[in-house]
Amino acid sequence: MARRPAPGAHEALLEAAREEICRHGLARARVEDIARRAGISKGAFYLHFRTKDAAFAELVQRLYGALEEQTRRREEAERRFDREHGDEDGPALLRAQLEFEVQVDLESLELLWRNRHVIRALEAAGPAWTRGLADFRRRLQRALRDRIAAKQAAGRLRRDIDPSAVADLLVGTYEGFVRRTAELRQKPDLAGWARSFLTIFYEGMAGPAARAAPPPRTRRATT
Amino acid sequence: MARRPAPGAHEALLEAAREEICRHGLARARVEDIARRAGISKGAFYLHFRTKDAAFAELVQRLYGALEEQTRRREEAERRFDREHGDEDGPALLRAQLEFEVQVDLESLELLWRNRHVIRALEAAGPAWTRGLADFRRRLQRALRDRIAAKQAAGRLRRDIDPSAVADLLVGTYEGFVRRTAELRQKPDLAGWARSFLTIFYEGMAGPAARAAPPPRTRRATT
Repeated sequence: MARRPAPGAHEALLEAAREEICRHGLARARVEDIARRAGISKGAFYLHFRTKDAAFAELVQRLYGALEEQTRRREEAERRFDREHGDEDGPALLRAQLEFEVQVDLESLELLWRNRHVIRALEAAGPAWTRGLADFRRRLQRALRDRIAAKQAAGRLRRDIDPSAVADLLVGTYEGFVRRTAELRQKPDLAGWARSFLTIFYEGMAGPAARAAPPPRTRRATT
Repeated sequence: MARRPAPGAHEALLEAAREEICRHGLARARVEDIARRAGISKGAFYLHFRTKDAAFAELVQRLYGALEEQTRRREEAERRFDREHGDEDGPALLRAQLEFEVQVDLESLELLWRNRHVIRALEAAGPAWTRGLADFRRRLQRALRDRIAAKQAAGRLRRDIDPSAVADLLVGTYEGFVRRTAELRQKPDLAGWARSFLTIFYEGMAGPAARAAPPPRTRRATT
């Protein structure tokens, strides 16, 4: 009779693969260490995965799934916020937007913090592996650029700003966060980070009108 | 008599190595293609470099040299700006700072644009190669964090912002720029990008005081 995989072993192996690959990198992680960490034999590993790379590929697909899901939830929450605050304007809207974004950003940061080592291992695993991450980043960059442009067109954000630069800033800042925190042992104050970043962002992007009465710039028509 | 390297060949090989490695990645670039592109024989390549990796290492050292030099020049220019504008305050200072930063930022962006393919090739070349880049990034992140903290202590930037988050934002945004522009054929409007990014940054970081009269928040002491 052929050997059957033990129940629970697949998850245990994935978790062990995550630990070993994050610690040593994909190239240097060893199947026997992954199996030992999961408490099963090296032979049993191959009942679940053809190769070490196949186990990592599964981890990476789960990461993409989580990132896509979080992006979707966030977009939905932001559309809802826009609907609910469609009539508001000025400093009150800016404050409400900031409080709302700190909340949703915290979920994104928790996800990035939990997956920081997988993301770093993925970036280090070479061109064949980073293509998917580059695709995700590109889609996110474009979606953010279009979202900013739409808000500018609707008069909710200042129009003198290149939406591509804004998208570079947003995507880059989260990547900077992942990079720095991948080296930390203690979880940093994620809410404080979110509030700092979003304060700069929204106060900078709101334009003078949303912060206070704008200074007169052009002479009024006298008709 | 041993063969002597031809004058100019070293530079031609470096330039050819840059082209081939940026196009195909370090792992897949071939010494014979590098030599052919430089117009010399494969054997002559080895008069200059022990391996393909040695040629790439030289390109990378030049990149670090250029990045360090640009960072140094920028810090110097910023210290000079701070000295010259030490007495100023409020919206006028904010405008002056923005104009100044757009100018120095343009030099940084030109450097990153020129080297965008080498930076991308370096990031893709694996853990042994990325260590130096990670070190540079870490030093830059800390220097920026300390600079922001000093400006906050001097009352020139708002204090309710975590300086580490600001440094993540700055470093990350430039990396986002490199990533996105590495895929462009046409040089984008670097000055426009700099102005967009820095407007968000300085208006967000200046705090209400530098932009306009702050709204009253606390009751005054009645003594």
